[in-house]
Amino acid sequence: MKITIDCLQYCNWSRDIFEQMREGGLDAVHVTIAYHEDFRQTVDRISKWNRLLDQYSDLIQPGRTADDVLRARDTNKTAIFYGFQNCSPIESDIDLVEICHQLGARFMQLSYNNQSLLATGCYESDDPGITRMGKQVIAEMNRVGLVVDMSHSAERSTLEAIECSTRPIAVTHANPSRWHPALRNKSDSVLRALSESGGMIGFSLYPHHLAEGSACTLDNFCQMIADTADDMGIDHIGIGSDLCQDQPDSVVEWMRNGRWTREKDFGEGSKASPGFPDQPAWFKDNRDFPSLRAGLKKVGLNDAAVNAVMGDNWLRFFEKSFGPA
Amino acid sequence: MKITIDCLQYCNWSRDIFEQMREGGLDAVHVTIAYHEDFRQTVDRISKWNRLLDQYSDLIQPGRTADDVLRARDTNKTAIFYGFQNCSPIESDIDLVEICHQLGARFMQLSYNNQSLLATGCYESDDPGITRMGKQVIAEMNRVGLVVDMSHSAERSTLEAIECSTRPIAVTHANPSRWHPALRNKSDSVLRALSESGGMIGFSLYPHHLAEGSACTLDNFCQMIADTADDMGIDHIGIGSDLCQDQPDSVVEWMRNGRWTREKDFGEGSKASPGFPDQPAWFKDNRDFPSLRAGLKKVGLNDAAVNAVMGDNWLRFFEKSFGPA
Repeated sequence: MKITIDCLQYCNWSRDIFEQMREGGLDAVHVTIAYHEDFRQTVDRISKWNRLLDQYSDLIQPGRTADDVLRARDTNKTAIFYGFQNCSPIESDIDLVEICHQLGARFMQLSYNNQSLLATGCYESDDPGITRMGKQVIAEMNRVGLVVDMSHSAERSTLEAIECSTRPIAVTHANPSRWHPALRNKSDSVLRALSESGGMIGFSLYPHHLAEGSACTLDNFCQMIADTADDMGIDHIGIGSDLCQDQPDSVVEWMRNGRWTREKDFGEGSKASPGFPDQPAWFKDNRDFPSLRAGLKKVGLNDAAVNAVMGDNWLRFFEKSFGPA
Repeated sequence: MKITIDCLQYCNWSRDIFEQMREGGLDAVHVTIAYHEDFRQTVDRISKWNRLLDQYSDLIQPGRTADDVLRARDTNKTAIFYGFQNCSPIESDIDLVEICHQLGARFMQLSYNNQSLLATGCYESDDPGITRMGKQVIAEMNRVGLVVDMSHSAERSTLEAIECSTRPIAVTHANPSRWHPALRNKSDSVLRALSESGGMIGFSLYPHHLAEGSACTLDNFCQMIADTADDMGIDHIGIGSDLCQDQPDSVVEWMRNGRWTREKDFGEGSKASPGFPDQPAWFKDNRDFPSLRAGLKKVGLNDAAVNAVMGDNWLRFFEKSFGPA
């Protein structure tokens, strides 16, 4: 099928962006609702999104199930799936897992860079794996159909999450660390475990995750995908662009610092370049998905393989992941 | 000085208990405000205490500084110091450290049995030490004068907290694990590090922390104190009874389970005996402090040493700990 799914964006949403999604043929996108927000603040974010869905119903529609992706495609809209990049929305209350699923959440990262109540983030120096509460919460996420996302988690926690979870998990936005050894990228062991367990990785277009950063070429990126397909198989890979279009730099500062420190943390940036990095010239916004398709074809993927990476794999993952166990 | 300070209680507070405090000659007590409560719930607990302080002002008074202990003694009252057994009250917001201090909190545990955002609890299988946020929060607690308490934390986290903190820390309620190897008790390394850094341990009378549990004799308990004084020195030890008088068993279930699991956790108890254990016959309530004094004398401590353990050491610790750095 020719479906296009992007499994991670956090843009400064506007009619312009939703129109660009239509121009780029995007059928579904997983949007981030929360980074550091507690439950009440998360509800505020969801109600803001509910208003956007109402206001721009000519361009977007709610995404809750895989069928919504097809419905969106058939009516020339983009289906919006909610997700959290941290477990802050459930605070210390396991019962909020089901509540968040009822409110539309379909993905939740167990940690965001730092240690959480559930798992370790990729910026901590030590990773003891999934915590006592983490094991309970994974079981609950499995029960209700909230996907475990380990994009910003550390190595051992990620491997243990794959092992603990009775359902396949996702790394919605990251790249192989053998291609670019950023803390946020994933080791061969993680990629192998993901693929063996029926999980998914979405390749990121965020410059700090790219070999050569903003200067990374389309060809280099697509070749990395082709190489990863050779290792992991074609069925477990997709796109999770991590596009943060039109966001002011104050937003990346918030992502990195939340309220956990009084000193300033620069995360993947530095004091000299603290803001959002420039997107590569060939992936500036949602209109660039067709050229990504073309790039994949150019490095030798056949039509079925291009379709698999661009959307079919995520669609199949959505089909088995969002309902009760 | 003949001062009596108990550095941990969580009773089902009533006029009876406050009167027993007066009968037992208790000049100050550190009371637990929160186990799993978030900030808003913690404020509710504090406002309930503020009402108790008003309602029973003939027996109790607020405790904020070491001077309040002396003021209470001089007016035949017990000074009430607020503390948290977990970092849940500050949620993921470092700025709530100062807010909690302004509301009267003087102690905060970095973790309660489980992994927290700051440190590891003693029931986790792995302990990676103090987290990134933990280091920031310890610095902030040092700045405002909120004492780091590691009573329910795991070994490496406790040692690292002692190291990270620029001010002495406390283990308000625990015993040496060489005397009784419970997960909640503390190793020789922790006791040594506490003593070398000017910290304090308060000896617990909670049966699960006692050799022979509820059957532990006064003599055995007092001999353990005398032995620990030989190892740690007499200046770094006190009482933190962990008295949970008149609480229904639903409270210990809440302490253990909060909202972090859907399975029932029995903590130090078991399925066969899930409730609060019976107190030893010689320490049933606050009227038993004088017999504890007598017990310490009986095992050979001189008057100055008995006074040190029963209150002078905590008073000196309070003097240097509760104000700005």
